[in-house]
Amino acid sequence: MREFILRALKAFTAPNFKLNDLPGAGRMDLVCRCISNALWISNDLRRDTKIHVVLEGPPSPPKAITFDGKELRGVSPDERNIASHIRLALRKGLGLKLNEEVEVWDGIRIAKRSFESLVREKSKNSQLIYLHPKGKDIREFKFERNVTLVLGDYIGMPRKTEKLLDRIGAERVSVGPLVYFASHCIVIVNNELDRRWLG
Amino acid sequence: MREFILRALKAFTAPNFKLNDLPGAGRMDLVCRCISNALWISNDLRRDTKIHVVLEGPPSPPKAITFDGKELRGVSPDERNIASHIRLALRKGLGLKLNEEVEVWDGIRIAKRSFESLVREKSKNSQLIYLHPKGKDIREFKFERNVTLVLGDYIGMPRKTEKLLDRIGAERVSVGPLVYFASHCIVIVNNELDRRWLG
Repeated sequence: MREFILRALKAFTAPNFKLNDLPGAGRMDLVCRCISNALWISNDLRRDTKIHVVLEGPPSPPKAITFDGKELRGVSPDERNIASHIRLALRKGLGLKLNEEVEVWDGIRIAKRSFESLVREKSKNSQLIYLHPKGKDIREFKFERNVTLVLGDYIGMPRKTEKLLDRIGAERVSVGPLVYFASHCIVIVNNELDRRWLG
Repeated sequence: MREFILRALKAFTAPNFKLNDLPGAGRMDLVCRCISNALWISNDLRRDTKIHVVLEGPPSPPKAITFDGKELRGVSPDERNIASHIRLALRKGLGLKLNEEVEVWDGIRIAKRSFESLVREKSKNSQLIYLHPKGKDIREFKFERNVTLVLGDYIGMPRKTEKLLDRIGAERVSVGPLVYFASHCIVIVNNELDRRWLG
């Protein structure tokens, strides 16, 4: 199992954000590109892959939305279509209590859940990896079969969170000599893991 | 210099395609993602990189639009914003004669030019590479400094074009064990070349 967790510090949690202005909705465009790159391949979805996006923008953070490649149906890889499903999830997640989760579409769930709680849980059952420009080179890194890869957005990860990640044993991995978009890091990770297990 | 050429067989060449339905405009979403992935890195653009997208859908193909990372200004990496600049280019390119080219925005040009003519020209001054699932593994491949990478869209490259590419000496390179979206191939190529020259 391959899982990604994106922390989107400014992404709106109101279900009425504008599909015509995804950058203005706390860089929802970036969130959508990460989901698209995590799950789609030519003519199929990655059935062994999930991505969790934790939205922490106004008005009601945190909201953790999971897209599961195994169950997903009827969604296209373009930003606008993915964003419309995020809106649907936010609408159905309006009344959630802390740590409550609800399915909103085939392969899409939403929970009122913090990033910290999510990474703590994943650290128990999978190898936790924090993608970081100063980490160990991905090509030299020893991956386990069950991996959870944690990414910050364009703002970066708060210092406090980095300390938490260190404490729960997240290993820092770098994907290359430049600082890439989160969505690009996901493509590079997918390619590396495909080579390890399918190559 | 790093150049990409995407052949988009169905992408609309009418400047009035709907920004709210990029997939319906001959998969213009895919074209936009390729441009975004070719040129943007965190907090900057790739100044040594260009991407040419050859649109061959109705009503007036072919149209070759070039986005040049060196000159580009005031464009965002989201699909909708890139698409709005493609529309602008198509509008300004309405009356072009064959092989005529016009600048439409800082770093954006449009020409009435065929894919074949473009790859022939590039083959004269740079190493021409055709990204293909059965090509040589990119990690083993010997790149020159000036490279032009040719990609098909979701339909694939017509047989006749593949013969032309063979004839002018394009080398086939594969990016991994799965068939990826063109936009993902671009990320993987950029990462590989970054490692070669910056790593």
